[in-house]
Amino acid sequence: MSALSDLLAYQRQTEALAQVMGRLGWDQETVMPPGSGAQRGEEMAALEAVLHARRSDPRIGELLALADPETEAEAAQLRLIAREHARTVKIPADLATELARVTSMAQGVWALARADDDIDAFLPTLAHVVRLKRVEAEALAEGGDLYDALIDDYEPGMTAAELGALFDRMRPRLVDLRARIREAGRAPRALSGHFPRDVQLALSREIALAFGYDLNTGRIDLAVHPFSSGSGADVRITTRVDEADPLGCLYSTIHEVGHAGYEQNIAPDYALSVLGRGVSMGVHESQSRIYENQLARSAAFTGWLYGRMRDQFGDIGVESAEAFHAAVNNVSSGHIRTEADEVHYNLHIMLRFDLERALIAGDLEVEYLEAAWNDRFAADFGIAVDRPRNGMLQDVHWSAGLFGYFPTYSLGNVYAGILHEAMRADLPDLDAWLAQGDPSLATGWLRERLQRFGGLREPARTIEYAAARKVSETALLDYLDAKFGAIYGI
Amino acid sequence: MSALSDLLAYQRQTEALAQVMGRLGWDQETVMPPGSGAQRGEEMAALEAVLHARRSDPRIGELLALADPETEAEAAQLRLIAREHARTVKIPADLATELARVTSMAQGVWALARADDDIDAFLPTLAHVVRLKRVEAEALAEGGDLYDALIDDYEPGMTAAELGALFDRMRPRLVDLRARIREAGRAPRALSGHFPRDVQLALSREIALAFGYDLNTGRIDLAVHPFSSGSGADVRITTRVDEADPLGCLYSTIHEVGHAGYEQNIAPDYALSVLGRGVSMGVHESQSRIYENQLARSAAFTGWLYGRMRDQFGDIGVESAEAFHAAVNNVSSGHIRTEADEVHYNLHIMLRFDLERALIAGDLEVEYLEAAWNDRFAADFGIAVDRPRNGMLQDVHWSAGLFGYFPTYSLGNVYAGILHEAMRADLPDLDAWLAQGDPSLATGWLRERLQRFGGLREPARTIEYAAARKVSETALLDYLDAKFGAIYGI
Repeated sequence: MSALSDLLAYQRQTEALAQVMGRLGWDQETVMPPGSGAQRGEEMAALEAVLHARRSDPRIGELLALADPETEAEAAQLRLIAREHARTVKIPADLATELARVTSMAQGVWALARADDDIDAFLPTLAHVVRLKRVEAEALAEGGDLYDALIDDYEPGMTAAELGALFDRMRPRLVDLRARIREAGRAPRALSGHFPRDVQLALSREIALAFGYDLNTGRIDLAVHPFSSGSGADVRITTRVDEADPLGCLYSTIHEVGHAGYEQNIAPDYALSVLGRGVSMGVHESQSRIYENQLARSAAFTGWLYGRMRDQFGDIGVESAEAFHAAVNNVSSGHIRTEADEVHYNLHIMLRFDLERALIAGDLEVEYLEAAWNDRFAADFGIAVDRPRNGMLQDVHWSAGLFGYFPTYSLGNVYAGILHEAMRADLPDLDAWLAQGDPSLATGWLRERLQRFGGLREPARTIEYAAARKVSETALLDYLDAKFGAIYGI
Repeated sequence: MSALSDLLAYQRQTEALAQVMGRLGWDQETVMPPGSGAQRGEEMAALEAVLHARRSDPRIGELLALADPETEAEAAQLRLIAREHARTVKIPADLATELARVTSMAQGVWALARADDDIDAFLPTLAHVVRLKRVEAEALAEGGDLYDALIDDYEPGMTAAELGALFDRMRPRLVDLRARIREAGRAPRALSGHFPRDVQLALSREIALAFGYDLNTGRIDLAVHPFSSGSGADVRITTRVDEADPLGCLYSTIHEVGHAGYEQNIAPDYALSVLGRGVSMGVHESQSRIYENQLARSAAFTGWLYGRMRDQFGDIGVESAEAFHAAVNNVSSGHIRTEADEVHYNLHIMLRFDLERALIAGDLEVEYLEAAWNDRFAADFGIAVDRPRNGMLQDVHWSAGLFGYFPTYSLGNVYAGILHEAMRADLPDLDAWLAQGDPSLATGWLRERLQRFGGLREPARTIEYAAARKVSETALLDYLDAKFGAIYGI
């Protein structure tokens, strides 16, 4: 056996164990008995310790020094294994265990605090998490920027400076678009009617399959917060149902199918290797966003969907395909990120980006976080935060220790904008297909140009290879201007 | 930290990882997508390798030499950790991995062969498994009896000689009882009617709760073969439904509740330690059997159940509680072990015990197994095997490499007989409670006398402590004579 094949065989076992961790997470959110949480925490901590030990094993360094790659895929694998190893060895095992323990506990504290609208109940725990994340960031950064070191976990190669500049360029045009929509004074009619749970689930499933989700290696379950989980031959999604609002179930399903489709469409040769999962959170989000927004919220697709909705639910309270398209794309200033429209969404992210960057830099203490959040929210959204669960307590990320994750959502939107521009140029018939309820022309394009390559290329290169153009925010902003200009007549 | 606390902390992580393996097994049998099997095999093999490495880690030997137990529970933990370590170090990691790989693959081959009634398609694979199990047994036995070394995995301290002697004493009385029942010429009327799936599941759930199953740390799902899975704060069961036969769903649920109740009732202090799981397969089976047979198939309980069945299903085709009791306890010579009544069940086990003992000893080659099975079956059951799936292809155990497991089923029956005799002496009001559909007097007795102690005492000592009498087969045989004597008027 060569050093290369030894290393890849070793990594394959690590990847398999990482998949097991994913299964435990899925289980916890979907089927785990209510009283099993504490034991599950120990199970996951034990597995995390195994993964940490494997990824920091000195043998990896020795094999990397000897391994001789012959193909582009082998070279990419060595690069990714080396990066994961280098990151892991910088974090002491004790710190990794402590982080796993504290963030697991913190999520319970946060959930209670949110339910009670009680920020004070959460602050000591949040301060503890921030403290640990700063220690982790210091270990990783080796003198560099702390927040950059955390971003690197989710979007390798990206920096806070680059994201900050990107967001600075985006913000004026988004604020302007929002102001023009508000001045137009149109409020799309909302859906009304009876939307039985089983019918919603059946329709969501039908549309998931149309978007290419493969139930032979996947399944759809219910969970409080929809998510996608797993790579390779076992990629599961969850959805949620509100009988008063069928759009939540439909569009969150399509969003998760974007994530899951990316994983399912990676070349089978890459399964259980470092290449066999989505290359970054930003690229992942580009897939979920383009499925959900550029494709499923297009006039062509909503035109088809309107007919399907009337077939399934009868009168849905809107009288035309145009009115349905406007309802699906309703722009309004709301408190909740996950419910935000395409115009407001990135403003939610920019707020969080600036605040968490300041927290990690040590420029903002957690006791001033609420005031900072509420001031910024009022300035950017034109409405006041009415209660903590609609403000700084709304997201799980900070309690889970996911600092540096938020900006990848907006980066995903930017990537989706570029991919969509390129796809439209390549596929002049796309709207005709979407108008038949068939997105396979677009999903096939994404599979061939992007998804099948998995982790082969760095994130930005993955997008540039697929779109054959440079990453830039203008495609997204032009798309938003055109789309909402048409809907709101501005 | 002392050597003792270091060792127990290390073992706690191993136990947590073993629980993760259990979750993967549960997932595979209940919710896993159909196309995920090969990847799941790799995930489980990777985790098995981790467990093998942990259990054979030389550090365990060093800590064991230094550890100084102060309590009975600590001493028991050291004894069990030492035994697991000693067993694991005898098996080379390569052999463990090869066994995991081959038995995982063999189960698929067996399932296909069974579906096709094609023994030849299974024999090469079975020969491979037997060969590997003999290598494993030789490594474990260190010159001793090969089959004893395998039994030790399921029933520590038990030997083939002891089991053989036990079965030799049981067999004449079972054969005699079976002959007298047949001569009586009575055939209980079978149930008939309409038994909707949802009503069966609701009634099974109600009865599971009555038998003490705790859904706060458990759940009930459907699976092809009912099983119980997990220890501590996450113990799940599965059941199956046949709309033509409600007794299958009900009694397999109660059987699994016996297994799960044992796990759930172990002292919480023992969770995630070597004491925190059922002490052996035989003791485990004693709990499932006593719940299912001595309690739930008693005249008192079936008297209550008859009323509940009529409430739920209307006319069930039998006209009295006595006729229902006879139907639930119908004795008939059938091919399938898992469908066997209390009289025939142990005859199925004795057949398998003798054959697998000969296979492991090298006294029987797999190509003669079918003839040996069919001859013995005709002699013991008075009917011929009509097709392989009703003969030597019916059970999963051999393809799964579980040689030495079968005899623990009958040992569990013997243990259940002793426990039942003791329980009846202690609880004169038991029938009055059972006649109200309330088994809690019995399950409470088992919890306090046996279940809460988990792995504290060796298997036979666990039974003797609970029953305050020596292990012997006569309690079971006397119970069977009395019960079936009454039902069949013999």
